[in-house]
Amino acid sequence: MTEGLTRLVAGRGENTSPLAPKDGVATLPPVDGVRFATVAAGIKYTGRTDVMLAALARGTSLAGVFTRSATRSAPVLWCEEHLARFDGTAAPAAILVNAGNANAFTGRNGAEVTRALAEDVARATGCPATHVFPASTGVIGELLPQERITSKLDELAASLAPEGAAEGAAAIRTTDTYEKGAALTVTCGEADVQIVGIAKGSGMIAPDMATMLVYIFTDCAIDQSLLQDTLSRLNARTFNAITVDGDTSTSDTLLLAATGRAQMERIVEADDPRLTQFSDGLETVMRDLAHQVVRDGEGATKFVEITVRGAVSDDSAHRVGLSIANSPLVKTALAGSDPNWGRIVMAVGKSGEPADRDRLTIRFGDVLVARDGWVDPEYREEDGAAILAEEEISITVDLGLGEGAFTVWTCDLTHGYITINADYRS
Amino acid sequence: MTEGLTRLVAGRGENTSPLAPKDGVATLPPVDGVRFATVAAGIKYTGRTDVMLAALARGTSLAGVFTRSATRSAPVLWCEEHLARFDGTAAPAAILVNAGNANAFTGRNGAEVTRALAEDVARATGCPATHVFPASTGVIGELLPQERITSKLDELAASLAPEGAAEGAAAIRTTDTYEKGAALTVTCGEADVQIVGIAKGSGMIAPDMATMLVYIFTDCAIDQSLLQDTLSRLNARTFNAITVDGDTSTSDTLLLAATGRAQMERIVEADDPRLTQFSDGLETVMRDLAHQVVRDGEGATKFVEITVRGAVSDDSAHRVGLSIANSPLVKTALAGSDPNWGRIVMAVGKSGEPADRDRLTIRFGDVLVARDGWVDPEYREEDGAAILAEEEISITVDLGLGEGAFTVWTCDLTHGYITINADYRS
Repeated sequence: MTEGLTRLVAGRGENTSPLAPKDGVATLPPVDGVRFATVAAGIKYTGRTDVMLAALARGTSLAGVFTRSATRSAPVLWCEEHLARFDGTAAPAAILVNAGNANAFTGRNGAEVTRALAEDVARATGCPATHVFPASTGVIGELLPQERITSKLDELAASLAPEGAAEGAAAIRTTDTYEKGAALTVTCGEADVQIVGIAKGSGMIAPDMATMLVYIFTDCAIDQSLLQDTLSRLNARTFNAITVDGDTSTSDTLLLAATGRAQMERIVEADDPRLTQFSDGLETVMRDLAHQVVRDGEGATKFVEITVRGAVSDDSAHRVGLSIANSPLVKTALAGSDPNWGRIVMAVGKSGEPADRDRLTIRFGDVLVARDGWVDPEYREEDGAAILAEEEISITVDLGLGEGAFTVWTCDLTHGYITINADYRS
Repeated sequence: MTEGLTRLVAGRGENTSPLAPKDGVATLPPVDGVRFATVAAGIKYTGRTDVMLAALARGTSLAGVFTRSATRSAPVLWCEEHLARFDGTAAPAAILVNAGNANAFTGRNGAEVTRALAEDVARATGCPATHVFPASTGVIGELLPQERITSKLDELAASLAPEGAAEGAAAIRTTDTYEKGAALTVTCGEADVQIVGIAKGSGMIAPDMATMLVYIFTDCAIDQSLLQDTLSRLNARTFNAITVDGDTSTSDTLLLAATGRAQMERIVEADDPRLTQFSDGLETVMRDLAHQVVRDGEGATKFVEITVRGAVSDDSAHRVGLSIANSPLVKTALAGSDPNWGRIVMAVGKSGEPADRDRLTIRFGDVLVARDGWVDPEYREEDGAAILAEEEISITVDLGLGEGAFTVWTCDLTHGYITINADYRS
């Protein structure tokens, strides 16, 4: 575990991913300025909570990253529009998330329901409707039963409390096999700053376009535009560096709220050394949550880190890495513990990025498999097979062309994935 | 079956794809100017032929399309180089194909072996080495045992005969579960022109980067540059419109040889009406061979045609179609006969192409599923499920934006695919 990081660990059930975190804590620490509440609204699931409300104190800076899908959901469109004009110094804000229904591909009704819910949350919590950031995750193409949520809003608002991030992580799950959360205290200058994040996702996309949703809360005092720049930069190498199946949700949402309640002067300059301290800690939390999502990948039995070096640029290395990580043939070889490095050569070749067959070097863990375009004479297949038989695997590809590098994370493609996704609704 | 088309049908074994052609013939007709021979060289397989030699008479025009992979194999690089300067009027030519070893990622040795084999074939058949077009398919990263082929070349050359295309189709298989061939006689002006094609491939890529190889022979008399233009144009909407797993081989090769022996004036102008007649027939053969490859897709139980209309351009429709056809979530829904149209919306959205959620129309077969961004009020889930339960499925997506259209073909993603690819080498 990364030093100082606290990870959420729930009970292990029969269906819990074998890659779920094996140690951690049952609750997440509070963040000054943030209150949570959850409720069982019966949107689709029974016997569990399915709505989370988070209230953000006035003075909060807010940053977000959303899916780039052309068919993104009504709540995503609402969030994009209102985040662009958000001013947390004017009034408090709120986040509302429901699981079980994605409110996606619901035509005009989807937008109307989103607006109505935002107005209802605004009334219940005392903030402007434009300060309400909703997300919906679950089945798509069905109208969101708005009334089931609306009827619970007063109860939710009355039960808001600083503890409750872990309960929030439980409420926003769809097919997740465990709750995902992480917390870290970082030193920013003289101040201790708390960073707490929760996530849901069982693949880059879970069945029926349920989504990856991530909410991170901190009491750091920081200017909103710096917060957004930091989030976007870190997102590229954390959540945008993971893939389960290469499919992209209509609802992916990542929100970062900074309440400014820590005992510190506000960070307003990009060259403030405290920004580096905060950013490093934030990256630790984001990377860990991203890994937790991959570890809950549908049917996953192996956690795989793929590092591409020697590319003409970092972007090129990123694309080569994703080409390898998304290749069904690479992913099935990983499932079978087959050190089939030829499939990695194939995936490099099909990426469309600059590569030279005769400069490729491939390593499984510490084992040199191939270099200069051919299998290494000392390589023994049983050494590669031993690496691939492990539950955590690292693969390094050096293209030998330049200085570009990138690391992506993925899981294997197993019979479990087919079973989950071929049988989900029928 | 397309009118007039003769399809090759071999015996059905225990492992033959359920989608294999159910009617057809056991042999393919000869093409004047082409002779075939096959032999069992024991490169990897035992008890079967694994090398095909085809001799092309002087006067043959030759056109080709090759994989765009950055890690393409030594034989592909050789073919690209020499096809660019090929002049069939100067001397005869030859095609040599082996199965069981791809001669890919074999470093400098791969290029040397390719050159040596071309020189050996040239000696055995009496053509220049630069007129020899080799292809290798099978395991990669292992040196091609050149001597096993070289020692058989005299035997091969001595047994060359006009009949033998079907035996060629058998010799070039790797994991294919059936031989693939098609023949059609087309009328070009006053002449009857024969078109005969053979193919191998069990996915856009079969395990270990075994490849899609396609060889088409015709006695049409046609200028080489017209032949290449026609082949490239038709390739875009036949072989480049199929996908099994989105993976791209290092060795994909499509060669078209026109011997000019038909009783006709040579076609030398692009506006010659006989070119249209020839092109239409060639497209029929190419499309049928492409479908035969999809029908042998690893683990495939369903043949799926996906048509995208209303895109801003044909290219855009092509990319949206492939985004749908390659989506693991769409392909597993097809395997489960789950009419999960939400996954199609997702795949449209992630394609990166212009699309408007509220203009999307989706049909399964003749059943209208969704229009204007929402499920059609008359749609009943059992109607969609009935369509998806069939062995041949058509899906139509209308983006509602423009006139661009494209059709792609794919198969479902099943436990069979995982079993074949997770267990292939180990």
